[in-house]
Amino acid sequence: MRNIEVCLSPDLLGLYSLKGKLVVVIDILRATSCMVSGLASGVQGVVAVATTEEVLPFKQNGYVTAGERDGSKIEGFDIGNSPFEHMAHAGSSIVMTTTNGTKAISLSWEAEEIVIGSFLNISAVAAHLLAREQDVLLVCSGWKGRPSLEDTLFAGALLARLPELERTDDSSYMAEAIYAQAATDLEGYVRARAAHVARLSKLGIDKDITFCLTFDKFDNVPVVQEGLLTNYQA
Amino acid sequence: MRNIEVCLSPDLLGLYSLKGKLVVVIDILRATSCMVSGLASGVQGVVAVATTEEVLPFKQNGYVTAGERDGSKIEGFDIGNSPFEHMAHAGSSIVMTTTNGTKAISLSWEAEEIVIGSFLNISAVAAHLLAREQDVLLVCSGWKGRPSLEDTLFAGALLARLPELERTDDSSYMAEAIYAQAATDLEGYVRARAAHVARLSKLGIDKDITFCLTFDKFDNVPVVQEGLLTNYQA
Repeated sequence: MRNIEVCLSPDLLGLYSLKGKLVVVIDILRATSCMVSGLASGVQGVVAVATTEEVLPFKQNGYVTAGERDGSKIEGFDIGNSPFEHMAHAGSSIVMTTTNGTKAISLSWEAEEIVIGSFLNISAVAAHLLAREQDVLLVCSGWKGRPSLEDTLFAGALLARLPELERTDDSSYMAEAIYAQAATDLEGYVRARAAHVARLSKLGIDKDITFCLTFDKFDNVPVVQEGLLTNYQA
Repeated sequence: MRNIEVCLSPDLLGLYSLKGKLVVVIDILRATSCMVSGLASGVQGVVAVATTEEVLPFKQNGYVTAGERDGSKIEGFDIGNSPFEHMAHAGSSIVMTTTNGTKAISLSWEAEEIVIGSFLNISAVAAHLLAREQDVLLVCSGWKGRPSLEDTLFAGALLARLPELERTDDSSYMAEAIYAQAATDLEGYVRARAAHVARLSKLGIDKDITFCLTFDKFDNVPVVQEGLLTNYQA
């Protein structure tokens, strides 16, 4: 039987074996939501890098630079970390660095495949995983190493769509339990609690939060291939 | 206002500031349950050490040696990690090393005070915390770095008894949500899910599991003072 596990923070990733697994990277507010919505809207490819220094060679090759630290756009970058900014760059390629999400991708290089998950494409991701044969690891990006509510809720929501896969760790049960509580009013639940929502609200990006908590706006499944994120083609 | 946070794994402890805080160390199955029940039953003091090597000098000074790795007693040690073994040593001092719980204690040395929490003394711990003025950090021992269901549930149960303290991180909300689901049948909930219960069941210590999930059997509050765990005296 195929199994599925949940890693609640990139700082715990060393405890999990990634080899041969399908890894779903999750950074709901907002890195993976940006990747999904950009690639769904005609962005050609996205390169995720961990540091601002790694952005430069791509910039010189005509990539749009997207960068965020602590929720705000990095000075000198073309765009920040709003899905609406990413959706406005159809036809371009984007190089992107963020506080949490791009780090989780960099750390997951050993996986058989890295899949980008968000509420925006959750059913497509679930179908993609079900069509494959490997074990699955859901990697929550969290906030500077700490588990975050919205990423854990997404892990729970995805688990709920994958009843066939066997849960083998307590973090899966925890994610499912939390999602069960939030399911009837996800946005209300997150807005009332998540520490990162409070952080982002101060930055005036309320529209982003609502958007990133919307189910199934898109049906693309971004995967990393030779360092580049593009939509999966069967 | 005083605040409270939850650290879901000792491997994440570096992300939290411990200075000036009351740290509650949690290892429900079974290290902190052993400490509480032993000290409640006449054990004079407990020294928690991280490695088996550190046990030797205490053994030479007449301490009872208690040790567990992967759930089983360490060869050559007097006792393992069952609360019933610890309760049988009234009048003695115990030196103890375990897979997870003693590591969390070792890592928490910077705290203002280290308090030992378990379901067995949960109301006494809550009252102790409420009588103080410092911020609180709940440290779950987990299993080899991974978050565990039973420790997270205890954090949620303790939070439920501390409504006056302000939650400032998502892990607190997660622990509360999980406990809310489990509260009506804690033992049934844990037995149906927790990975560590499956591990321990193979070792035939069913009686320990039931005992460790019992609320308020004791009213002592073990704290670390000069490296030694003893019951708090006001």
